[in-house]
Amino acid sequence: MPFDFAARIERARRELTARNADALLISLGSDLPYLTGYTAMPLERLTMAVVPRRGDVVLVVPELEAPRVEPQPGVFRIRAWSETEDPVAVVAGLVGKVDRAMIGDQTWAVFVLALQRMLPGTEFHSARPLSEALRIIKDAAEIELLRRAGASADIVAGLLADYTFAGKTELEVSRDVGVLLEANGSDTVAFTIVAAGSNGASPHHEPGARAIGNGDPIVIDFGGKVGGYSADTTRMFHVGEPSDRYRQIHDIVLEAQRAAVAAVRPGVSAESVDAAARDVITAAGYGAHFIHRTGHGIGMDGHEDPYIVAGNLQELRPGMAFSIEPGIYLPGEFGVRIEDIVVCTDEGAERMNRSPRSVTVVD
Amino acid sequence: MPFDFAARIERARRELTARNADALLISLGSDLPYLTGYTAMPLERLTMAVVPRRGDVVLVVPELEAPRVEPQPGVFRIRAWSETEDPVAVVAGLVGKVDRAMIGDQTWAVFVLALQRMLPGTEFHSARPLSEALRIIKDAAEIELLRRAGASADIVAGLLADYTFAGKTELEVSRDVGVLLEANGSDTVAFTIVAAGSNGASPHHEPGARAIGNGDPIVIDFGGKVGGYSADTTRMFHVGEPSDRYRQIHDIVLEAQRAAVAAVRPGVSAESVDAAARDVITAAGYGAHFIHRTGHGIGMDGHEDPYIVAGNLQELRPGMAFSIEPGIYLPGEFGVRIEDIVVCTDEGAERMNRSPRSVTVVD
Repeated sequence: MPFDFAARIERARRELTARNADALLISLGSDLPYLTGYTAMPLERLTMAVVPRRGDVVLVVPELEAPRVEPQPGVFRIRAWSETEDPVAVVAGLVGKVDRAMIGDQTWAVFVLALQRMLPGTEFHSARPLSEALRIIKDAAEIELLRRAGASADIVAGLLADYTFAGKTELEVSRDVGVLLEANGSDTVAFTIVAAGSNGASPHHEPGARAIGNGDPIVIDFGGKVGGYSADTTRMFHVGEPSDRYRQIHDIVLEAQRAAVAAVRPGVSAESVDAAARDVITAAGYGAHFIHRTGHGIGMDGHEDPYIVAGNLQELRPGMAFSIEPGIYLPGEFGVRIEDIVVCTDEGAERMNRSPRSVTVVD
Repeated sequence: MPFDFAARIERARRELTARNADALLISLGSDLPYLTGYTAMPLERLTMAVVPRRGDVVLVVPELEAPRVEPQPGVFRIRAWSETEDPVAVVAGLVGKVDRAMIGDQTWAVFVLALQRMLPGTEFHSARPLSEALRIIKDAAEIELLRRAGASADIVAGLLADYTFAGKTELEVSRDVGVLLEANGSDTVAFTIVAAGSNGASPHHEPGARAIGNGDPIVIDFGGKVGGYSADTTRMFHVGEPSDRYRQIHDIVLEAQRAAVAAVRPGVSAESVDAAARDVITAAGYGAHFIHRTGHGIGMDGHEDPYIVAGNLQELRPGMAFSIEPGIYLPGEFGVRIEDIVVCTDEGAERMNRSPRSVTVVD
């Protein structure tokens, strides 16, 4: 394990102190594996790490899941709770009567409400600002994992140029993309969106039974994980030659993507990168069809800070990693999106994805 | 779609009234698809249905995901929010200044905290009791889906008798079980735990790189989904002949499972079914090694009410569906668990799983 969890815990404690908070409570999501190496199961039995400003870090975990936990001596101790105990009472006992606790964003409501009832004198705040402070700047080891995850996705994008789409359903292609990711360097599949024809106009389309045939444009948005870090790239495929209109739209999106990547450098705002992409698409007359932000941060979570969106004045800094993925969506016709992950460096954007961004004509 | 969402919404409103609550707010988890047919994406953009005691049901959804929503005329209307809007403010505006809201258990903490800040006069309560009241009794159509999901898992259990385990890793077997589920009647894979050798002593083991070889016992706990309803079954495999000790433990668990299934009938408590299994294992001297409850309800969620656990005095009623899955876990040696889903009927338990419960000797 290349990560120094004890050092990360110390940073978390400093962030608690800076925010005048007494304890950090984390459950689902990536803060827990970031600080302890352990990932909670998304089930009704509570797993929660209690990180006090001073004193032991305790990982409260269901007894039957305790054997899953890789011990980290000097980082945390385990408090396994049995099936007839109340884990919320266990956590409340560890937290004690404090003024201010920060709680992980993805913690289930049922546990937040139960903790509030059990600790009526404690103010609960979202841990997002703390989580952002800890995780938004990636170190060299983290960037290397993002690079490897991106390279795996790029290999798959290359293999898809020789893949036969016609006659398959979106769902079949989606499953095959997953198999290809795992066979080409990804530890696991994060997600695989495959949207054919007019389904491409739905950015988060769920791949389904639609059969792919000649003349279909296909949006493929996919990525796996390497060492816990995510890939996320989108490329355009087309069964047979695309129409002039399709090529025209594709060119606009490609130009918008280039402009946004070129806008990345330390000190510029996140929203200025969004504007760089949006200006190109708006000038071409399709502004109303670019219905989402230009990008999102990426790391252990598939979506995290910084968000590349109008209104986000946050300054980019070296080590921030995020997607740049403008798109144009034409309901009833098709959609085009082109996406790379980039890391902000002193010299500008380093792309984690290098597969060809032109539309790939396939069978 | 065989489900009457409008009728379900009316039941939800009656449950709100019975609890003197003004609005139901649901996001992640199965309450949303149960009431509307739509499943929220587990991402940082809020999706939330606002179900007031009276008036329109509104599905608040990110603009880029609105095309995913299948409209249900007369059930809900859609309020798509754009990337620069605050969706929590949209929800708060729809809820209004009410005294008491119920919020879905799996809603992310960040949204609960933000809603509490925006609606300081509103008490927020967990929607679990309401959700339980709506969903704990399965109707005939739901039971048929559970039966089909169970039958798919049973087919796969049968195919695994002729599958070659030796030389594969847990992870490879896990992926193959998933492929078999989707090829044999399951719409999607819910989960596939494969635990070889001493890993079987960890009930929620994550399949990994451990190679399977001669002499290994293997726990396989798996299931897919059909029409949104889950399967969950556990069977024991053994590469080559098991030891006498293994067979002895297997016999105890099998007897415990039989005893618990036999204890199911309307009017008995959930905890009495747990006791029926636990008494057999305790009498055999392994009580300390049965480290989890006997079972959990199942339906659209893989784990839901009723929980078959000491302390749960809830009476079983016809139409309740749950797992019966006693186990004995011997750290450093192996684990044995045998699991079927059953539905409580007037005549006792109907098993959704019928594949052989004996240990299957494999290559």
